[in-house]
Amino acid sequence: MLTPDRISLNTATLREQWSLAECIEGCQRHGLGGIAPWRDKLQEMGATQAARAIRAAGLTVSGLCRGGWYTAEGALTQAVKDDNRRAVDEAAEIGAACLVMVVGGLAEGSRDLEAARAIVEEGLADTLAFAQELGVKVAIEPLHPMYAADRACVNTMSQALDICDRLGPGIGVACDAYHVWWDPDLKAQMLRAGPDRLLAYHICDWLVPTRDLLTDRGMMGDGVIDLPRLAGWADEAGFAGLHEVEIFSALDWWRRDPDEVLATIVARGATVC
Amino acid sequence: MLTPDRISLNTATLREQWSLAECIEGCQRHGLGGIAPWRDKLQEMGATQAARAIRAAGLTVSGLCRGGWYTAEGALTQAVKDDNRRAVDEAAEIGAACLVMVVGGLAEGSRDLEAARAIVEEGLADTLAFAQELGVKVAIEPLHPMYAADRACVNTMSQALDICDRLGPGIGVACDAYHVWWDPDLKAQMLRAGPDRLLAYHICDWLVPTRDLLTDRGMMGDGVIDLPRLAGWADEAGFAGLHEVEIFSALDWWRRDPDEVLATIVARGATVC
Repeated sequence: MLTPDRISLNTATLREQWSLAECIEGCQRHGLGGIAPWRDKLQEMGATQAARAIRAAGLTVSGLCRGGWYTAEGALTQAVKDDNRRAVDEAAEIGAACLVMVVGGLAEGSRDLEAARAIVEEGLADTLAFAQELGVKVAIEPLHPMYAADRACVNTMSQALDICDRLGPGIGVACDAYHVWWDPDLKAQMLRAGPDRLLAYHICDWLVPTRDLLTDRGMMGDGVIDLPRLAGWADEAGFAGLHEVEIFSALDWWRRDPDEVLATIVARGATVC
Repeated sequence: MLTPDRISLNTATLREQWSLAECIEGCQRHGLGGIAPWRDKLQEMGATQAARAIRAAGLTVSGLCRGGWYTAEGALTQAVKDDNRRAVDEAAEIGAACLVMVVGGLAEGSRDLEAARAIVEEGLADTLAFAQELGVKVAIEPLHPMYAADRACVNTMSQALDICDRLGPGIGVACDAYHVWWDPDLKAQMLRAGPDRLLAYHICDWLVPTRDLLTDRGMMGDGVIDLPRLAGWADEAGFAGLHEVEIFSALDWWRRDPDEVLATIVARGATVC
């Protein structure tokens, strides 16, 4: 069971309703412990001003979403590297616990997953070198295998941690229950990650049926993920960060009053997480 | 590249258009090497009559779809065991290379994946014992993780083969490209399965975007799966069976003339598989 101070709001949850400034005020009003901005909302507000407002509200920044997309231009380009370096700068400016990486899927017109994965690892190495200089942690987010083609070709905790093993310190994983709940190897991999590499923990729920591959995530408790069990594993792995709520929900939560959404998050935290 | 005699038609591909008798005639007309009936179509025709017609058409039976659903009643019941024994009987009667198992997802109202997986393994052991007496091979089909909740809680080749290791001879895997193409461990697991346990190989394609979780599979060549690479791995693993085409496609192929569908399968076999 999560008290509000253990919960962070990923701004994607209210992406259709609120600006970052409104999200910061909302988190404070509902007693949440933290926030995780998306870059578009952060840039809209300005990173410096956002950092100030977040600090003033007493919020922790559980992550910045998102860097990555290394395969977007087919090969790893300077433009992609530069954009990721800007993301690192932004993460540093707002004091984010990590920069969350959605690494990108197959390059346009390609069926070569191995090639995509090689591009991703090369890109991560570049971003990591820069992030180390600024003291920013890089968190690879394994995405559900249904996004392997078009969003991220890193699809399991094991695969992400193998990359971390190769790239060395400063890089870890963002573990999102929605993406990994099905994995029979999940507990072992969370323990393998441990406190130094389990950099973020995201929650929402898997709805049955799921009506859309991208924007039909559920509020905690409305689906089938055993969130208390996963939270127990996160504890066991030594994760001491916030549980970040990230719900893409075009059909439901994006249509509701934002204060109702935040109140529901707090209530569900107390009962089903 | 697949010649038609290396291709089998899974009747789900024409499930909205043709009976099993029509599928058998169609396969013969288009020179396909085999067929894989679903149980509903088989029962409609009658297993004895179907077996005779399939033999007369010179077709191999690459599999019978499907046994499993062990979690359907919450616990493993005698009714579920009995239904799977009937499936084994049917597979024996038509000389199927294997009985394909879609094992079932979470029990109704449950979030306990571990419990579901325990039920499944108990059920598979029961079916296997009976199948061994009749000389029928049991093939666990790992389903894509997006079906973990509602169709099958066995979701990777590795997980399926771990079960096979525990249950002993007579059981293997049905490897469906659609379900496993994303898996970074796929090649290693196909080789681990080897000729004795790689009992079936199913093909279709992953469309981008995928508009429906269940019924938007693509014709080979229309999506992003590197089918020649996967076929090479199947060869390397010693798989000598047919490539079984199984396309659930409510929006496209289920609406087309069945002879056009079969002609397309043959053409794509020659060019993109």
